[in-house]
Amino acid sequence: MATDESVVIDGTPVVPGVAYAPLLAVHQDVPAEAISAFDAGLTVDEAVATYETAADTVAQRLAARSAASSGHAADLLSATAGIARDSGLRSAVRTRLEAGDDLPAALGSAIEEFVTTFTRLGGVMAERVTDLRDVERRLTAEIVGAPEPGVPDPARPSVLVAVDLAPADTAGLDPASVVALVTERGGPTSHTAIISRQLGIPCVVAASGIMGVKDGTMVLVDGAAGTITVAPPEAAAREQAAAEERLRRELASWSGPGATRDGHRVRLLANVHDGVSARAAAQAPVEGVGLFRTEICFLDESVEPPVEVQTEAYAEVLDAFGPERPVVIRTLDAGSDKPLAFANQADEDNPALGVRGLRLAGVNPGLLDRQLEAIRAAARSTGTTPRVMAPMVATVAEARGFADKVHALGLEAGVMIEVPSAAILARRLLEFVDFLSIGTNDLTQYTMAADRTAGSLAHLTDPWQPAVLTLVSIAAEAGRRADRSVGVCGEAAADPDLAAVLVGMGVTSLSMAPAAVAGVGRRLSRSTMQACEEAATAALGTADPVEARAAARAILEI
Amino acid sequence: MATDESVVIDGTPVVPGVAYAPLLAVHQDVPAEAISAFDAGLTVDEAVATYETAADTVAQRLAARSAASSGHAADLLSATAGIARDSGLRSAVRTRLEAGDDLPAALGSAIEEFVTTFTRLGGVMAERVTDLRDVERRLTAEIVGAPEPGVPDPARPSVLVAVDLAPADTAGLDPASVVALVTERGGPTSHTAIISRQLGIPCVVAASGIMGVKDGTMVLVDGAAGTITVAPPEAAAREQAAAEERLRRELASWSGPGATRDGHRVRLLANVHDGVSARAAAQAPVEGVGLFRTEICFLDESVEPPVEVQTEAYAEVLDAFGPERPVVIRTLDAGSDKPLAFANQADEDNPALGVRGLRLAGVNPGLLDRQLEAIRAAARSTGTTPRVMAPMVATVAEARGFADKVHALGLEAGVMIEVPSAAILARRLLEFVDFLSIGTNDLTQYTMAADRTAGSLAHLTDPWQPAVLTLVSIAAEAGRRADRSVGVCGEAAADPDLAAVLVGMGVTSLSMAPAAVAGVGRRLSRSTMQACEEAATAALGTADPVEARAAARAILEI
Repeated sequence: MATDESVVIDGTPVVPGVAYAPLLAVHQDVPAEAISAFDAGLTVDEAVATYETAADTVAQRLAARSAASSGHAADLLSATAGIARDSGLRSAVRTRLEAGDDLPAALGSAIEEFVTTFTRLGGVMAERVTDLRDVERRLTAEIVGAPEPGVPDPARPSVLVAVDLAPADTAGLDPASVVALVTERGGPTSHTAIISRQLGIPCVVAASGIMGVKDGTMVLVDGAAGTITVAPPEAAAREQAAAEERLRRELASWSGPGATRDGHRVRLLANVHDGVSARAAAQAPVEGVGLFRTEICFLDESVEPPVEVQTEAYAEVLDAFGPERPVVIRTLDAGSDKPLAFANQADEDNPALGVRGLRLAGVNPGLLDRQLEAIRAAARSTGTTPRVMAPMVATVAEARGFADKVHALGLEAGVMIEVPSAAILARRLLEFVDFLSIGTNDLTQYTMAADRTAGSLAHLTDPWQPAVLTLVSIAAEAGRRADRSVGVCGEAAADPDLAAVLVGMGVTSLSMAPAAVAGVGRRLSRSTMQACEEAATAALGTADPVEARAAARAILEI
Repeated sequence: MATDESVVIDGTPVVPGVAYAPLLAVHQDVPAEAISAFDAGLTVDEAVATYETAADTVAQRLAARSAASSGHAADLLSATAGIARDSGLRSAVRTRLEAGDDLPAALGSAIEEFVTTFTRLGGVMAERVTDLRDVERRLTAEIVGAPEPGVPDPARPSVLVAVDLAPADTAGLDPASVVALVTERGGPTSHTAIISRQLGIPCVVAASGIMGVKDGTMVLVDGAAGTITVAPPEAAAREQAAAEERLRRELASWSGPGATRDGHRVRLLANVHDGVSARAAAQAPVEGVGLFRTEICFLDESVEPPVEVQTEAYAEVLDAFGPERPVVIRTLDAGSDKPLAFANQADEDNPALGVRGLRLAGVNPGLLDRQLEAIRAAARSTGTTPRVMAPMVATVAEARGFADKVHALGLEAGVMIEVPSAAILARRLLEFVDFLSIGTNDLTQYTMAADRTAGSLAHLTDPWQPAVLTLVSIAAEAGRRADRSVGVCGEAAADPDLAAVLVGMGVTSLSMAPAAVAGVGRRLSRSTMQACEEAATAALGTADPVEARAAARAILEI
């Protein structure tokens, strides 16, 4: 698509698909230059007037977003709008202005005063500190004339571009108005990548230089090639996007269930994280949920939700799938890229190697016990039989202790295979647990000793790395021998060719973002089990991911 | 040793041995309460006089330490003493006092002013910022009457106790005056543990509560049991320490070379990090150096040392061992717990999973090329033939690229096996490199996905973990098949029972702190190769480290 006139930016391909739309950049901070360039020559009254106009604008914008949202997000936005309009805040700003501060400094000090007071009050008020900071950034930007911080509301379908995106940034993203995601940082298993798959929109990460492109520029994102073409020739770009749309429609007609061409059944499942995503996923051709990420339900909570609130959150998901389509619930996986205020350990040098997942139960056993209590209650109230698994298991003793607790509830227990040790000991773990679920994202990160969120290490954090495939095959083989199910719920399950390789290794189910199911289902339906097995053997025999992918494809595409 | 009267504090056992001496605590920061309790009612002249007395005391103390040191450490201490006495600093303090600051605040602002100036000047001056901060802490402590920050000079042999110790803290530790190390944090492979082995003194880490014991209290440290008995009955404590001393003397008579009882040779080697440690290690019954940690030579440098300076540093070590006892040089392993100002990547969320070791060569290829140039020059000038290995290798491509560079110098190339991927791909790596060296510290950290410096995860970062042993045996087996040497240079090599298990797996050399060599040599000399092999098989068949250790011991102690 590149011509002499259009620049192509290369990144790491993450979610395939083509999108052609104007670029819209996310700015997290107000640039220091914009603040220092602000004209300080206002009188106090002029400054207060400027402040009031800015506060109105910001509050109206937040109120409009609140009106367009629902539930918790709506309440949050409406409360934030209230802070922007607060008369106490306005008085505090005026006092500072009268003491000689310029407007940005006066606002900063006034907010600081409120933060101190709110923090001292504790409880619900302390929870508002984040909102105060958010209001500060938005007001400062408005005052100095900088772009609004945070994810803007696209006026038309746009390619959203950011340095990186955190879970809070993407909470309310609407796939109707965001047609692709591109970030300067991040790896193929970063939060941005996960959300893109969830939304079913193309995604490229580690796209160095993308933040230098001006807002509004038309860009063509190719999520399979990992390229962003800046200002491409329009006709050709539109044609490429249209061809993509036709393929999408073809995939939309795939209706399951998952099986190889010769009828070897593979359960295709959905990854979900709350009632909304579960109800959407239940519409997809899936046989259940392979990964319910419970921690995402509680991202905004600063204290542990009571058992009743947890029960309700779990019941929503179980209800969406009913008694016929089983749900695998993963217990809280709080950690480096999923901070939960009420569960995390502060001050870890390497949070990804720290006290996370099941390890939290060692520090705070009640947390796990109360979660299991809520799961039992939700199972009863919905008449379903969920299976329960633990994240970050490294030893046989951990698996055994967890299985004992879950079996005591009359439910099946499993563990995630995401620590290399767990893959190596898979046979031993199956002496105590009923099933395994391989989380290829973390397994890759630890096996390669490479941070999955680090863009500069994206070449290492590739699930096609032969060492990662070897550990996956050890776990799959252990399941085959013990006649227990072994699923894959990492991003690898959503890569059609890799999915075929995993099935060839003996993996019995694949859990993924619902948007990826049809592509994987179509790929499996076109290969025999023998081809999958041969592709697995070929990939395992290689020395690097490029070779592995090529070797598998050569066999699968015969 | 505990009685009703003495309290026993439990920690993680790291270096065996018994010590009985008064406790001496390391305080890194001046307590905030001490600063806020400082009486601000001084006149400006009184405050300046207080400042001058404090400055003299601190400068004299630093100068005395400088006189007792040599080389770079002496220069550094003397320069720091100069800063404490600096008249410009005194004037700046006076100016601030006259403006109304109290003395600690005046000192803080004056130092801040100097930091800004020094930073602006850059180069050699910017390097002094650390010393300015050091002087600030020492002067503040002296002024407010708090204990001197940093590692104090023990007046008599003492048990040194700290929250944690960094390489800079332990640079000048003298084993004659520090008889044991105990930290509240840290794991069995933390920096504290490494230094203890290097010095050959008992060590316990993750000893929660130890910082609550008063300075000067007599404590009995049992490095094998991982206990610290506070104020034990004196006679029994002295007897236990004396028995330990007799065992030490017995070990001192072991003179090598390493072999099993039936004459199977095992090369026992030393870990060294500079000329001083190499000359000391050359006195031990070792056949060479299995790990020369080059990064430790350059800990204090803010810019990359020129090739000539590097050459000299390497030549010192090569000279100490001469042409008959080969040295394995590891290229720079800068990373999370070994920051090198001129080589590290800033701002990593998980530095242990970041751009470290050989990965730095991807970012800054010249760094590796210049180091190899210096190694070649040092080999020529000393008439020796070092072998060269790379840290943090994860892929075949990385090993191949490194081996090509080293082979071009006419030297043998190896890679560290410390990333799980490298252990799994050991057979492939040996198609390109001449030898492997297993770093059990990092290999354990990544295999278990547990930060080796986190005290709360010490139960996971145990090299006896069966999954770690499995990866070690895969690498050893690959070496046996390819007839290449496979060494172990992590802390595991220094554990006598584990050393025997490693030999049973096929490991051909063990590299450790010189102080550990006799204990390992003695253990090997009392077991047959067959017993080692059986112990390895038994340990590999277990499900946890306690079982593994017990199973191996049961066989080795027959």
